[in-house]
Amino acid sequence: MLRIMMAQANFKVGDIDANTQKIIELGRQAQTQGADIVVFPELALTGYPPEDLLLRPSLHLRVESALAQISQSLKDLGIILGYPAQREGKLYNMAGFFYQGQTLGEYAKHCLPNHQVFDEKRYFHPGTQACVVHFRGVRLGLSICEDLWHPEPIMAARDAGAQLMISLNASPFHMGKLAQRRALLQESAINSQLPIIYTNLVGGQDELVFDGASFAVNAQGQICVQAPAYQENLYPVEVCLLEQEACIQQGPQAPQLDADAELYQALVLGLADYVNKNGFQGVVLGLSGGIDSALSAAIAVDALGPERVQAVMMPYHYTSSMSLQDAAAQAKMLGIDYQVLPIAPMVENFMDTLAPCFAGHAKDTTEENLQARTRGVLLMALSNKLGLMVLTTGNKSEMAVGYATLYGDMVGGFNALKDVYKTRVFALASYRNTLSPAIPERVISRPPSAELAPDQKDEDSLPPYPVLDAILHLYIEGDQSQDAIIHAGFTADDVRRVIRLVDLSEYKRRQAAPGVRVSERGFGRDRRYPITQGWIPGV
Amino acid sequence: MLRIMMAQANFKVGDIDANTQKIIELGRQAQTQGADIVVFPELALTGYPPEDLLLRPSLHLRVESALAQISQSLKDLGIILGYPAQREGKLYNMAGFFYQGQTLGEYAKHCLPNHQVFDEKRYFHPGTQACVVHFRGVRLGLSICEDLWHPEPIMAARDAGAQLMISLNASPFHMGKLAQRRALLQESAINSQLPIIYTNLVGGQDELVFDGASFAVNAQGQICVQAPAYQENLYPVEVCLLEQEACIQQGPQAPQLDADAELYQALVLGLADYVNKNGFQGVVLGLSGGIDSALSAAIAVDALGPERVQAVMMPYHYTSSMSLQDAAAQAKMLGIDYQVLPIAPMVENFMDTLAPCFAGHAKDTTEENLQARTRGVLLMALSNKLGLMVLTTGNKSEMAVGYATLYGDMVGGFNALKDVYKTRVFALASYRNTLSPAIPERVISRPPSAELAPDQKDEDSLPPYPVLDAILHLYIEGDQSQDAIIHAGFTADDVRRVIRLVDLSEYKRRQAAPGVRVSERGFGRDRRYPITQGWIPGV
Repeated sequence: MLRIMMAQANFKVGDIDANTQKIIELGRQAQTQGADIVVFPELALTGYPPEDLLLRPSLHLRVESALAQISQSLKDLGIILGYPAQREGKLYNMAGFFYQGQTLGEYAKHCLPNHQVFDEKRYFHPGTQACVVHFRGVRLGLSICEDLWHPEPIMAARDAGAQLMISLNASPFHMGKLAQRRALLQESAINSQLPIIYTNLVGGQDELVFDGASFAVNAQGQICVQAPAYQENLYPVEVCLLEQEACIQQGPQAPQLDADAELYQALVLGLADYVNKNGFQGVVLGLSGGIDSALSAAIAVDALGPERVQAVMMPYHYTSSMSLQDAAAQAKMLGIDYQVLPIAPMVENFMDTLAPCFAGHAKDTTEENLQARTRGVLLMALSNKLGLMVLTTGNKSEMAVGYATLYGDMVGGFNALKDVYKTRVFALASYRNTLSPAIPERVISRPPSAELAPDQKDEDSLPPYPVLDAILHLYIEGDQSQDAIIHAGFTADDVRRVIRLVDLSEYKRRQAAPGVRVSERGFGRDRRYPITQGWIPGV
Repeated sequence: MLRIMMAQANFKVGDIDANTQKIIELGRQAQTQGADIVVFPELALTGYPPEDLLLRPSLHLRVESALAQISQSLKDLGIILGYPAQREGKLYNMAGFFYQGQTLGEYAKHCLPNHQVFDEKRYFHPGTQACVVHFRGVRLGLSICEDLWHPEPIMAARDAGAQLMISLNASPFHMGKLAQRRALLQESAINSQLPIIYTNLVGGQDELVFDGASFAVNAQGQICVQAPAYQENLYPVEVCLLEQEACIQQGPQAPQLDADAELYQALVLGLADYVNKNGFQGVVLGLSGGIDSALSAAIAVDALGPERVQAVMMPYHYTSSMSLQDAAAQAKMLGIDYQVLPIAPMVENFMDTLAPCFAGHAKDTTEENLQARTRGVLLMALSNKLGLMVLTTGNKSEMAVGYATLYGDMVGGFNALKDVYKTRVFALASYRNTLSPAIPERVISRPPSAELAPDQKDEDSLPPYPVLDAILHLYIEGDQSQDAIIHAGFTADDVRRVIRLVDLSEYKRRQAAPGVRVSERGFGRDRRYPITQGWIPGV
């Protein structure tokens, strides 16, 4: 009988000293809980993804010294751990098995993802050998993340005699990812006839959020243990050997979250970790009375607590009394500090100063942008003076079509909603209110408006959000052509306009704040489009 | 005797239709100039780098249709051309040889760069075969860019019978790159005993600038033809066969530019192409009386002409009369439109509005940032109303240490100086004045100041620029550790402070405007650092 502890832990990228201490501390806890082996995630030692920190020349020294410290500090415990390792001048994404100060085996990741948000071929050489470690009568095969998404590595481990696979992961969340992972591993387990223990990282790192949700699947493809998502903790898996086959015993199964709950928690963790790991005291955000800022405020309170969230309402002539009432009501509901700073004096002064340059030009969106930018300056002044990070609140639909003012409502250090389409923002707001009252119902039910001009509504300049979001989803996540989207049943006018706006807005997105990636194609490292380009939509 | 025309041309990324027409037009010109073969750069058909446009599903259809059109339109001419090609479901970075509507050969790039700014493994599969085409009695081997930076591909071509190498390139400029390329190819030619004709792309594409400077080297390693850098044109190379060896005849050799001239022209072309390819009418920039904006104005005038450049001086209480005089004098010197918009009314109004929130807090950089951000709002309003792109002017030293205000002086669509250290800014300003008077001498000679507080000088808060830039160069381009830089002879205090500022400013750079990359490590796709990270400088 082996007791294997999945260390579903949250590491800080680059902070090898702190991560080493955390690994030792969790190892000790695992030992007191009777573990034979503790398994940490992929690249636990450096956090994931370390990006170009992997190019720093002292990386190798730091890693070797940390590994020595870990393996010396945790005797009588098998430690399986991910780290970058330099061997004969080449860097590998490695999993090592340490015991009694000895290295029992090392496995270099075979399949290096270099798509979507991943750049592993920028740094690593691929491994080619299976690694099977004999430990207390069981033969454990090592595997790292992407390796299980391809058939070869697990079959190579099986051929090398593995009875049980240990998979180290830094698998970022996107909507539906857990179900995808479970189905994939069930299939791998059945095909290879090997049980798999899958330990995943948890925590936010810039745009990525890792959901944890580690689990274990037996050789028949049954999930035997399921750790909860978003929790940092040790989760035990009991393995016994029956007629030379490793069997995973039934253990606790955390209930699956529904789609909105799963997404909401990803946003909360992504924001909390960005703010906390970067050492901000808290956040300040503009509450407009609209749904994006309302949902962002609720997420911020859930991530940081009400005392670390400061809201500012910055009304102008076009701000409705409804917006003023709703913003104040929500601030009270959430128990957050709330200020009202009218922007009219600055806006009028800008207009007066610019009047000679604007002579002969008609009114256009310039005047609307001025309002948004005046608000941006106020938020940044509060941020600078009070040490609070500005939370920016534009949703994915806005980021996609550029329905946002650069240096205006786009100012901020981080954006919880950057990868959430507007229709989903509504769903999440309703979901959040099922937990406790957080967003005034009128904010959810009234038609969205930027309130930058009299009686303005978003749908005056954009297709209705359900249509807009459906087109965007086909174009961005689906990579479909203009013709294909029209063919799917949307009007040619809408499709052409939306695609044109997406393409033209690349320059804005390039200067946008980072935000939590929760889709299969976010607007960060995930979608690398040129700004300067002449691709003509069509087929 | 073969007459091979190097088509050193400027293409627009993604605009396959326009690029096809340009290829046909240049092919016709080459024919009227007696060419047997015309050679276009790497991925000429799509421009370089097409980034995620390569993932669009209709790419293959578009490429095939363009290739058919090209090879049908240019009979009696050998056409060598780069394009992305899908073969059996895999995408290759391809060079094709077309003649009389037939494909005589196709070569898939072997060595796919996935370092620095390059992401080719994100898109392409590597080729494995040499490709040698027999044409009018000569055996031509094809090669693409990075292939020549490794010994294997050219030796494979030689083994396959090549007498002459044709290399298609999209090799971006950085300072000293041309000398590096020439030395490299001289060595390759000598090692392989094969002459090489090297055709390079020219033009700006977002952060990259391609300098052209195509050339031909004989089997003895002598450069026989050198095309000028930064010029779009056809350059002939004459090849004859002597005892089964291909020989390149001596042809015109464009003079090598000195380092400042080469760099200055890169900045001019990078800015011109960004503005023109994105369809802006011109640029607007803040002229502060300082050297960064002064040099940027000169570059803008050289790139676009004076009538497309609008300058604005936005004085506040701390703006010296010297700055006002120098800015006005330069505008007159360059013949550009010049406005003065004082910012005091808006700044005072912001301060009044914020006073209740700021009660009990001391004056700090918040008040300085307010000035910079008020200027940013004015520039953006002019941009919106007049259709001009804001040219932002922060140099690499500032971008590195974050000595710039996000949403303040950092506003803008593009930055010509983003990758130029401050010490080099001075050198370039002096260089530019050797061509014609463009920058008042006092702007070059006075100590730099942001003029955001009384009697402020940059060196009050930063080490002197020669020291700062030397430390930055070791840290950024050199990837050296804190200890190594201290060991190189800088004071520990300076080094620690500078590295800390660089690391802390990643969040600002992430939201910075793109700018021309001219070093071996710019701040765009070139340096992928996490914002959230705990790497402790030291060894």
